[in-house]
Amino acid sequence: MSWGLEHLPYGVFSRQEGETPRVGVRYGEHVVDLAGALHDEVFATGSLNAFMARGADAWRDTRAVIQNKLGTDLGAVEPHLIPLEQVTLHLPIEVADYVDFYCSLEHASNLGRMFRPDDEPLKPNWRHLPVGYHGRAGTVVVSGTPVVRPSGQRGAGVFGPSAKLDIEAELGFVVGSPTALGERAGRFEDHVFGVTLVNDWSARDIQAWEYVPLGPFLGKSFATSMSPWITPLAALSEARVPGREQTPEPLDYLRRQEPWGLDLTLEVELNGEVVSRPPYREMYWTPDQMLAHMTVNGARLRTGDLYASGTVSGAEPGERGSLIELTWNGTEPLKLPDGSARTFLEDGDTVTITASAPGPGGTVITLGEVSGTVRPAR
Amino acid sequence: MSWGLEHLPYGVFSRQEGETPRVGVRYGEHVVDLAGALHDEVFATGSLNAFMARGADAWRDTRAVIQNKLGTDLGAVEPHLIPLEQVTLHLPIEVADYVDFYCSLEHASNLGRMFRPDDEPLKPNWRHLPVGYHGRAGTVVVSGTPVVRPSGQRGAGVFGPSAKLDIEAELGFVVGSPTALGERAGRFEDHVFGVTLVNDWSARDIQAWEYVPLGPFLGKSFATSMSPWITPLAALSEARVPGREQTPEPLDYLRRQEPWGLDLTLEVELNGEVVSRPPYREMYWTPDQMLAHMTVNGARLRTGDLYASGTVSGAEPGERGSLIELTWNGTEPLKLPDGSARTFLEDGDTVTITASAPGPGGTVITLGEVSGTVRPAR
Repeated sequence: MSWGLEHLPYGVFSRQEGETPRVGVRYGEHVVDLAGALHDEVFATGSLNAFMARGADAWRDTRAVIQNKLGTDLGAVEPHLIPLEQVTLHLPIEVADYVDFYCSLEHASNLGRMFRPDDEPLKPNWRHLPVGYHGRAGTVVVSGTPVVRPSGQRGAGVFGPSAKLDIEAELGFVVGSPTALGERAGRFEDHVFGVTLVNDWSARDIQAWEYVPLGPFLGKSFATSMSPWITPLAALSEARVPGREQTPEPLDYLRRQEPWGLDLTLEVELNGEVVSRPPYREMYWTPDQMLAHMTVNGARLRTGDLYASGTVSGAEPGERGSLIELTWNGTEPLKLPDGSARTFLEDGDTVTITASAPGPGGTVITLGEVSGTVRPAR
Repeated sequence: MSWGLEHLPYGVFSRQEGETPRVGVRYGEHVVDLAGALHDEVFATGSLNAFMARGADAWRDTRAVIQNKLGTDLGAVEPHLIPLEQVTLHLPIEVADYVDFYCSLEHASNLGRMFRPDDEPLKPNWRHLPVGYHGRAGTVVVSGTPVVRPSGQRGAGVFGPSAKLDIEAELGFVVGSPTALGERAGRFEDHVFGVTLVNDWSARDIQAWEYVPLGPFLGKSFATSMSPWITPLAALSEARVPGREQTPEPLDYLRRQEPWGLDLTLEVELNGEVVSRPPYREMYWTPDQMLAHMTVNGARLRTGDLYASGTVSGAEPGERGSLIELTWNGTEPLKLPDGSARTFLEDGDTVTITASAPGPGGTVITLGEVSGTVRPAR
């Protein structure tokens, strides 16, 4: 079955309005209520944070216990299996800090070509470090949350709803184990609890006017959607790949110790139609490198930190993870099967991002989707 | 006395290691233990957040009750007065999101002149909106926390401790009342609980290499210090001024409704010597405008959000709030009384920022200081 023992992503659910949400894992079309099944109140605290804070040994042991119970003693777990259609899924973590990177060579090059046609598409620093910035943690929302079209300044004296509302299809990494202030992070797998899908909604017109010289702010801060499911790193063992070759060779602190490239293929659907299949395995900077970079200055990690890859775009036109690339800043509209065309998002549009990766024994790991529908500006 | 009834800033303190910190107000050389004095457990929760979340009416009522008790019934409060030297002061809030603005015309112009001598010093957007970006909430630390010199990339293939460690003297604003996702903030005084001093430590060499095109990241994220004391807006009634004239006139959503310029004068001390007196009243963008801008796109406010003004710099050389301006990027070293000179900070240097403002009846409101000492890189 899909969503079998090889996957078991973590999420947070409730059955009735008003009750404190609980941690579960998805198993087929059910959620396993872990507080009940494992007799552990850490799973009844409303988010994954308390469990994640226990550290990597606890994550591994817990996964083994769940797999064992489901595999050999399903009867004992059965009272704690809840059909998916009976639950509401919530934001699975309390987000501490949110950082967004810019790790796709093709995405960064495409944007450079569009906005600075007479210059080198990549800035001089791009091949030396994973460029990143902090986003707004307070507006990270769970898949399914409607996205209100933001208003803002789009130029000198020009105010109104964004006319260039876009998506960014990204992979997100959730930090479980913290570091102390002044320390660098250790091994990727000791700090990162799991992987999730992220849509970093972007108002390109607001962003283009505001972002010099301190970077994106209101063009991004209105909403960032994430999947309700977090896939533990252990479920992605078959998806691990060395990561793309890098020239020049990165500095010592950025050197890869283990293969943490991931052979995940994303799929972007606009109103139910696939418009792109971005290949995560082609990303230039891998998530272990992002983590090493983010903490090389002694910046502390906290349980619940979320960092994302930046738009995943491959070399082919059908592999681009944003509309600004897919329509080349609106000059080449996408034709949709209903006869309409799109440059950027219209009110009522629904964007859904899914992803799949090879699992053990020929299985397929399907990440939990992230979806959102655009509501008109207020 | 100094720190009298007209001020009463809020902070969080503990008497013994390991106990849950409690909320107090500073009164002279004592802290009033509010959980005890007011019989309210909201002040025994480890931070100001729970109290701030009660909203502006509760802030006003509580302040009146405290002033009344201290003014008319000191005997009843006396058991809850603790000498300052017996307490440890903590970070007073759980920081939700941290945003840093760039609101001084002189600071932005000075940096433009240094880094882009052949261009207009201000970018085209600067007079149209308060430029800002998100910083790292997890590395906001309380005054007194040592600051370890960060290491990082300072150019292609160049790695090591920052050689241009700097300060930024800023005023910070603490959000008490949240908004819902998709809503704009209402009146400044209904959302902002109080004011604090901030030192946004900056590694100029790391920042200069990394910041294109997504803004400052590791050059800032290693530490941001704040005062342990938050001055309620009500204590600054005599300091309110209209704010500097603005050309062009800002768009409607940025138009000032009430005077929220603040006549505060900062003082920057380096190893005990005053090196600058930045005038906050000269800032171009006022804090009500920053709040309106930050939420115009529907970005939600949370209790505990902290936003800062950006470096406060006035028109005179002795009014600049950063070393990069005071030494013109290191070309004009500061001479210190011990005979030494400074371009940027050296290990062991201590920077302390204080501020004062007119209070009621000729009193002076002295904000709680923010201080930090530089430790060598690890």
